[in-house]
Amino acid sequence: MLEVKTPEEVLRLIETEFRPLGRSENVPLSGALGRVLAEDVKAGEYVPDFDRSTVDGYALRAKDSFGCSDAVPAILDLVGEVRMGEAAAVSVPPGGCVYIPTGGAIPADCDCAVMLEYAEDYGDGTIGILKSGAPGMNVIFRGDDVRPGKTVLKAGRVLAPQDIGALAAVGKTEVPVRRRLRVGVISTGDELVPAEQTPGPGQMRDVNGPMLAAALEEYGAACVAFGIAADDEKLLREKIEAAIAACDAVILSGGSSAGRKDAACRIIGELGELLLHGIAIKPGKPTILGRVGNKPLIGLPGHPVAAFFVTKRFVFPLLARLEGRTMRELPVRASLSESVSANHGRMQLNACRLEEKDGRLVAEPIRSKSGLITQLAGADGYFAIARDCEGLGAGADVNVYRN
Amino acid sequence: MLEVKTPEEVLRLIETEFRPLGRSENVPLSGALGRVLAEDVKAGEYVPDFDRSTVDGYALRAKDSFGCSDAVPAILDLVGEVRMGEAAAVSVPPGGCVYIPTGGAIPADCDCAVMLEYAEDYGDGTIGILKSGAPGMNVIFRGDDVRPGKTVLKAGRVLAPQDIGALAAVGKTEVPVRRRLRVGVISTGDELVPAEQTPGPGQMRDVNGPMLAAALEEYGAACVAFGIAADDEKLLREKIEAAIAACDAVILSGGSSAGRKDAACRIIGELGELLLHGIAIKPGKPTILGRVGNKPLIGLPGHPVAAFFVTKRFVFPLLARLEGRTMRELPVRASLSESVSANHGRMQLNACRLEEKDGRLVAEPIRSKSGLITQLAGADGYFAIARDCEGLGAGADVNVYRN
Repeated sequence: MLEVKTPEEVLRLIETEFRPLGRSENVPLSGALGRVLAEDVKAGEYVPDFDRSTVDGYALRAKDSFGCSDAVPAILDLVGEVRMGEAAAVSVPPGGCVYIPTGGAIPADCDCAVMLEYAEDYGDGTIGILKSGAPGMNVIFRGDDVRPGKTVLKAGRVLAPQDIGALAAVGKTEVPVRRRLRVGVISTGDELVPAEQTPGPGQMRDVNGPMLAAALEEYGAACVAFGIAADDEKLLREKIEAAIAACDAVILSGGSSAGRKDAACRIIGELGELLLHGIAIKPGKPTILGRVGNKPLIGLPGHPVAAFFVTKRFVFPLLARLEGRTMRELPVRASLSESVSANHGRMQLNACRLEEKDGRLVAEPIRSKSGLITQLAGADGYFAIARDCEGLGAGADVNVYRN
Repeated sequence: MLEVKTPEEVLRLIETEFRPLGRSENVPLSGALGRVLAEDVKAGEYVPDFDRSTVDGYALRAKDSFGCSDAVPAILDLVGEVRMGEAAAVSVPPGGCVYIPTGGAIPADCDCAVMLEYAEDYGDGTIGILKSGAPGMNVIFRGDDVRPGKTVLKAGRVLAPQDIGALAAVGKTEVPVRRRLRVGVISTGDELVPAEQTPGPGQMRDVNGPMLAAALEEYGAACVAFGIAADDEKLLREKIEAAIAACDAVILSGGSSAGRKDAACRIIGELGELLLHGIAIKPGKPTILGRVGNKPLIGLPGHPVAAFFVTKRFVFPLLARLEGRTMRELPVRASLSESVSANHGRMQLNACRLEEKDGRLVAEPIRSKSGLITQLAGADGYFAIARDCEGLGAGADVNVYRN
């Protein structure tokens, strides 16, 4: 008989029992947002590839302007103009300058740019420089942004809009990303009807099926919906086998409840290996985890709130392990609006709303009986209370996890 | 001449000058994640629609078990079984009980459920109850989760996976959501080439086009890419008119730089009204905003970092205003790893990485010259330094915005 494991033990189990699939594909830059980078991206070129001006003004030799002022301008010959998007082919002799727009290429003879505001065009082919330049002033040098060989982004990163910009800058328009995971979802229970159907006596709508599909979409995996399985071990086994064959991981919603866990455990044992039977969290304790080859099969509690927490805390890290994704928890710090008790010998997870009050974030715990879905509707996140903690008082600081 | 406005003034301007479009459509539940709810959703039914057991055990009249114990069990007649997904049609006489699974319907005659662990089946048609029940024990009553008329979710909310679950629970499988905004993006500049092209002398790849498309996708708007416009006022005007006609809002990237702003302002003035010329932030000051009817036309700085910050701080709130989306900033609190100076008389925005050190989140500011895209690659967020602040010391607390 497998024992109930702590959350930390479960996360370690995920690392030791499953290995990254290592499958990748190339996608165009326009389809790369939210995908997981499969390789480090190094720049192959200089960005920018030329010295460019950061201002509208005049490019010149700094030393030709040393000591000038409003009262005693440095008078330089205007010998030409740099145009946007063209090489700075113009030759600038000592004592000369050229007009240059922001982003224009600094001519080879020049070493700085002086803003228009500090220059006066006398209209006779000369320009008065009113403020002394300095070498490098208002210039972004070739390679200041990126030099060839520099790592721009690391493998495992989930690509954000700013990363898409960086990839565009280095011309990486075919992006190597991890293949999306395919995750099968089976809802179990004779009492379940699809959400679009009106429940008859004793029946309930399947909440977890649509919720898990949305959670997987949020994560960035493809959900393969296998619908509702009745409480018939043979049919359930067939459905699980079909799902295992077609997917990288399979979630059995409601498969860990008392009346069904034996069947689910038997099926997992026959197809592969049962790894886990119970996590020391509340809600979510009756969670099972098995392995068929390198494919995880997760039995989630049927209660939507428990299924939600287990998905966020354990299914997402499991998928990240398979995918080779760098997961980062960046919780929001907030203070509790009221006390919350806990003394179950298990880590307790609590949904909450977040409100800003007097410039501080306040977490308002959502109270309701376990398993009620409205506990989650409108929630902004959740926080955890450690297993040895008997509760938290009003005003206590909590880390609120948003996903 | 319009004056530079503070960030707060710009946000107020957005509220006063633009009104919500109020356009909505119905989408199936499976397509509702991340969409903006267009109406309050009220429950039309009871959830659950019947009293259900939260345990596997026996349903009974609590008073028939009062005073029982391990030593002196209450002996009840087992008169039947409740099956999952069926009405509890069985009649339970006083002194009787029925087997009930988790989620099963409590028979009308019973008022509690006792867990299997506290019962003994004597095999002769009687059950020994070892622990006293209490009315309501282990029962979720009809409507405990939701009653008809209760508001489950409010209009304006961006639907999260837990909300999808709640909508499934109340059978709301056609979801009224705001129509996705269509946002046109035009990159301007003779020096720009598409990202997939190798820049020639004096040329740069268009970074903002792909980055803005990704940012709009992250927000949940449809980006309509109008490509790169050369620095030709007539052609630019034609492109802007086409974009305004086809979209709800238009972004002109690089349209606010010194060499182009006059043309952009002229075009906006001819087509509609110029509202803003400059925001007191760094980077991002040369931002322009105009209005053609109720359609905003935003001129963003060409520097990718500035364009990024202005998009997050002002373009997103502008889109939220048009869409009727409830925007919430839930920054992550972190302490600065090193000091950052600021004394520009403008709010300063700084990209940063977030690292966890000794259980605390630490924000490491990313330093580089303005406009360099690698400042953003791999960034986890950004923080602001108020205009009157001369800088922040190492260890100072900052609010890090992640989007």
